[in-house]
Amino acid sequence: MDYMFELKMEVRDYECDIQGIVNNSVYQNYLEHARHKFLHSINLDFAQLHNEGLDAVVTRVEIDYKYSLRPRDLFGVRIRLRKRGNLRFVFEQQIVRLEDEKLIVKAEVTGVLTKNGRPIAPAVFDEALLAAGLDVMTEK
Amino acid sequence: MDYMFELKMEVRDYECDIQGIVNNSVYQNYLEHARHKFLHSINLDFAQLHNEGLDAVVTRVEIDYKYSLRPRDLFGVRIRLRKRGNLRFVFEQQIVRLEDEKLIVKAEVTGVLTKNGRPIAPAVFDEALLAAGLDVMTEK
Amino acid sequence: MDYMFELKMEVRDYECDIQGIVNNSVYQNYLEHARHKFLHSINLDFAQLHNEGLDAVVTRVEIDYKYSLRPRDLFGVRIRLRKRGNLRFVFEQQIVRLEDEKLIVKAEVTGVLTKNGRPIAPAVFDEALLAAGLDVMTEK
Amino acid sequence: MDYMFELKMEVRDYECDIQGIVNNSVYQNYLEHARHKFLHSINLDFAQLHNEGLDAVVTRVEIDYKYSLRPRDLFGVRIRLRKRGNLRFVFEQQIVRLEDEKLIVKAEVTGVLTKNGRPIAPAVFDEALLAAGLDVMTEK
Repeated sequence: MDYMFELKMEVRDYECDIQGIVNNSVYQNYLEHARHKFLHSINLDFAQLHNEGLDAVVTRVEIDYKYSLRPRDLFGVRIRLRKRGNLRFVFEQQIVRLEDEKLIVKAEVTGVLTKNGRPIAPAVFDEALLAAGLDVMTEK
Repeated sequence: MDYMFELKMEVRDYECDIQGIVNNSVYQNYLEHARHKFLHSINLDFAQLHNEGLDAVVTRVEIDYKYSLRPRDLFGVRIRLRKRGNLRFVFEQQIVRLEDEKLIVKAEVTGVLTKNGRPIAPAVFDEALLAAGLDVMTEK
Repeated sequence: MDYMFELKMEVRDYECDIQGIVNNSVYQNYLEHARHKFLHSINLDFAQLHNEGLDAVVTRVEIDYKYSLRPRDLFGVRIRLRKRGNLRFVFEQQIVRLEDEKLIVKAEVTGVLTKNGRPIAPAVFDEALLAAGLDVMTEK
Repeated sequence: MDYMFELKMEVRDYECDIQGIVNNSVYQNYLEHARHKFLHSINLDFAQLHNEGLDAVVTRVEIDYKYSLRPRDLFGVRIRLRKRGNLRFVFEQQIVRLEDEKLIVKAEVTGVLTKNGRPIAPAVFDEALLAAGLDVMTEK
């Protein structure tokens, strides 16, 4: 995947379950943490947006589990962002084991920006991406 | 949804995040816990299957987040199971707030049964479902 | 232990770690959830108190791990409350496996009530306990 | 504190609760992760020890909560190890906010080494510490 951002992390023992592998729900934590770091990297500050009544809300996730991470594995969470129509943005994400580039998880996370609970056009996203020099494709 | 099994649960405060609502990844814990309770209810014991080299593995989840649960909300996790082809089984799941039947989450979780790491036909599932008197539809 | 309140719970598979037992940090979740349920049972509503600037804050925990819980174990979290001096309250808590009354965890959790960040005499606690007919011992 | 090991970490948003601060139970995850990294740093491999029937078991924790961490805070988890008698080892741990050296959490975690479930003298610990050039004090 041709990605815009990568966060490198390491599996912590307490994230693993009885089968000795990272529990399925933990990958969502990894994916979320990487999205937040990405958005901070382009100067989108959620605490500040929240004070202006703006919230980014996840409406759908699709996750394909290809292979399992184990204790102490080093992995990268990679992100590419695109827009869908006027309101939705889609994060394509991959989790890759760094040692051998093995694909662990492939995810598509769809979100909207809400103002006081209602979806609005994500102009603050567009501006932040532009300022960061990132081109974002829009699907029809 | 016409469901085979429902597990009733209550939101715990520590499951909620900064926004005061249940964190997205926690719904996967709820969904998993309900699946395990369902499978135990038809006498499928994972610890025992594991000792015979059999493991149920989730390969894909799709989750639509419709509305948020808040601290102390009572909710039901509902399950319907169907098969897809010879190898895959699909759990259709819904999380519903019990007070008003509000749909919170809609999910489709796909899995396979593996023996020593390789997918096999889930005969033990078929037998357990049959013994429990549950009809399971198969998609082509 | 002669307790004021008991919450019955069941171990969920995702709460267990690589060793096949409940992870040490999860017991704190169990203990917290039981304290919150206890306080709600005597009509102390944290959301409401918080809006009045009142927060209950844990300042210290001591936990003795005696034995481990395993998947599907049923357990009770038992609570007795006492006061220490004018400001502090102490929750004595035990986690007991219900099948055989085996003691799993013994804990002492100390807290204070704060108003706008400063400890105050927990008069709302005293009143709620009195109204519930519960006698609370005070240590010097 | 004069420490033997420090692990630097950053608060992740999903680790924070309704109050906007790191949930109390999460500090135990931080403390555990730092202990495991420390032990790996002196070449103690738990997976390998486990295969030889050896397990490190936490028997008691004492945690003083001094101040709260917030989203994105950078912190260090510091560790000093000492022995208590022939069987027990004690990890003194501190969590410190790196920006200003503010003390967040002070903890004492007591453990034993077990072989097939029974406490044994932790000779493998002594050897690993010696090989790493670390002096460990023994309390009577």
